[in-house]
Amino acid sequence: MKRISVLGSTGSIGVSTLQIVAEFPERYRIVALTAGNNLDLLCEQAKKFRPIVVAVISQVDAGIVKKRLAGFQVEVCFGVAGMIRCASLADADMVVAAVVGAAGLIPTVAAVQAGKDVALANKETLVMAGGLIIEEARQRGVKLLPVDSEHSAIFQALSGHRHDDVRRLILTASGGPFRDLPAAEFRHIVPADALAHPNWSMGKKITIDSATLMNKGLEVIEAHWLFNVPATKIDVHIHPESIIHSMVEYIDGSVVAQLGIPDMKTPIAYALSWPERLPLNQPALDLCELGTLTFSPPDIQRFPCLGLAYHALDAGGTVPAVMNAANEVAVAAFLKQQISFADIPVLIERVMACHQVEDVTTVDRVLQADLWGRSRAKKFIAGGLK
Amino acid sequence: MKRISVLGSTGSIGVSTLQIVAEFPERYRIVALTAGNNLDLLCEQAKKFRPIVVAVISQVDAGIVKKRLAGFQVEVCFGVAGMIRCASLADADMVVAAVVGAAGLIPTVAAVQAGKDVALANKETLVMAGGLIIEEARQRGVKLLPVDSEHSAIFQALSGHRHDDVRRLILTASGGPFRDLPAAEFRHIVPADALAHPNWSMGKKITIDSATLMNKGLEVIEAHWLFNVPATKIDVHIHPESIIHSMVEYIDGSVVAQLGIPDMKTPIAYALSWPERLPLNQPALDLCELGTLTFSPPDIQRFPCLGLAYHALDAGGTVPAVMNAANEVAVAAFLKQQISFADIPVLIERVMACHQVEDVTTVDRVLQADLWGRSRAKKFIAGGLK
Repeated sequence: MKRISVLGSTGSIGVSTLQIVAEFPERYRIVALTAGNNLDLLCEQAKKFRPIVVAVISQVDAGIVKKRLAGFQVEVCFGVAGMIRCASLADADMVVAAVVGAAGLIPTVAAVQAGKDVALANKETLVMAGGLIIEEARQRGVKLLPVDSEHSAIFQALSGHRHDDVRRLILTASGGPFRDLPAAEFRHIVPADALAHPNWSMGKKITIDSATLMNKGLEVIEAHWLFNVPATKIDVHIHPESIIHSMVEYIDGSVVAQLGIPDMKTPIAYALSWPERLPLNQPALDLCELGTLTFSPPDIQRFPCLGLAYHALDAGGTVPAVMNAANEVAVAAFLKQQISFADIPVLIERVMACHQVEDVTTVDRVLQADLWGRSRAKKFIAGGLK
Repeated sequence: MKRISVLGSTGSIGVSTLQIVAEFPERYRIVALTAGNNLDLLCEQAKKFRPIVVAVISQVDAGIVKKRLAGFQVEVCFGVAGMIRCASLADADMVVAAVVGAAGLIPTVAAVQAGKDVALANKETLVMAGGLIIEEARQRGVKLLPVDSEHSAIFQALSGHRHDDVRRLILTASGGPFRDLPAAEFRHIVPADALAHPNWSMGKKITIDSATLMNKGLEVIEAHWLFNVPATKIDVHIHPESIIHSMVEYIDGSVVAQLGIPDMKTPIAYALSWPERLPLNQPALDLCELGTLTFSPPDIQRFPCLGLAYHALDAGGTVPAVMNAANEVAVAAFLKQQISFADIPVLIERVMACHQVEDVTTVDRVLQADLWGRSRAKKFIAGGLK
């Protein structure tokens, strides 16, 4: 019986995680849940899965949840301390880190420091503080199991093969809804267009990141840290069908790939069950019915965010954290229609250009860089991106 | 330094094996070579690689080779005894079994019985006597390393994953030159048409087998024995580009595949170097340049040989050996224009229909079934397939 704490239980990954746990009650038990704004769903989940503790953002929310869960034996806590409590709970064997954005960093660090194996769905943890996290995990013998379909694919394609024999990693990208849209049209994109992802059903932030290819950029950085491979050996292929989830090329020319229908349940389940697999009730991949898989190189001219991410990884130190912060602000501003879709990379690039890179020596230093990036991005927006 | 005996050194696989050995002289040394009719090439190879022993088919050929290699310290032997000598040489660490057809069975059995690891390119060994060979290899701790691109792909896709989690194997097939030809046209196919394989450069026998899909049928039977998976869990996809070399589907819906350019050097090198990989000087697979991969189900109506192979595996015992024997006779007769392309499966099916299945308890029993199948096939041909 694996005891699991789910950070971000009401988001897309959190909900799928709980579906899997519900399918395999003899294997998994939920011991903690944390959520942001969706208190209704959190309370419903708590009633169903009976965690030891739940955490929400504010004291006010905690009061509401306590009232709704009266009669249930559950501890309700809140804020960063509440998140840390859930991430480092003595009763948890594994933490599913599925909080979106920079907010996921602190609890994920807490989980690693508490020696918990982490099913890592929060990209920003490694983007912002990859070096620190990987070293901390290594020292404590903590396993970081990727939940992203791309990193799960690479993890599976590396399994059973020698790391010394890797020539390059190839991350696939659907290319998002604007894959074939001319650059001149980018100014007219409205949030509803960008939120209509062709293959994957995901949260808003990551859907916009998919449309700009920043999502793939964050994944390149994440792959660098997870698999200890330099940026020069990480390539991206546009693969609109999202069937090959990513690949590893070896020195003999052999390429090992992991494929599947585009559904997050498979990679989430693999992170939970590794090194075993769960007999999921998923429709099988039918390549004959699909008929065709296609591939093309990414267009960095139309999608500069991918280039910015490679640049950030190359620059190192605090630059990826600053880039990520600027991107979060940019995406939020786009969703509020304060800036255009085409402005997203412009804003990020401007923020990165005026950042003085520093080494990442502590999580606090990373959080300062994050705050600096956000405040600078907001200033640029307030100034009309002039 | 791995010392290698190459059985069938002048064939397509043998020549590629020697190319790899020549590229990595610090890793491999050739200790034995055997050949059929191409004495010129055998002598050239012997002068270059300086084996301890070479073997040819007849005493007359051995005399010719001895004369040509006068002055070189090399033992020249012949016949089945000569092949067995090369297969079981005390100085050999590994035997590359690359003799084509049923003739490969006896020396491969000898290699396994001598405790040599075998890089297995000869399909018929497992098709005819899979149960015996696998048990013998298990008892002696012998590794059977597949050289076929499909089985190498499956071997790589299984590596690092649990056998219990396998849902099915998916072998890919190019579909051969007549993939899209209407069945009515099959009577007009001449050997030159069938020998023009779209992707792979191979020997004549295997090229015809690719055109009839019997090659894939033999591979299904081979996969059953190599990977201990029942026929019901082995599927075939037509994949004309021959880029995905085969796949393994797991119980969680995950599919692991091995891809590469269609070149036998990669799987041969993997069998030689496993569990390491060699830094081959191969052009990298460029999926973006290729653009498209396509898949479709095999058409068993137009290509009955594939169905016959499943039937033979299902029937078990001596049936696969008889099917293989009939196929070898049929292919030879087609190449001599004694029967039509459409007659190949008709002939095989007739021979199988009049065979009384027996258990395979000894190699001799298998060889008797092989002889029976050949003689019966020849009788049918002599009778004008009436």
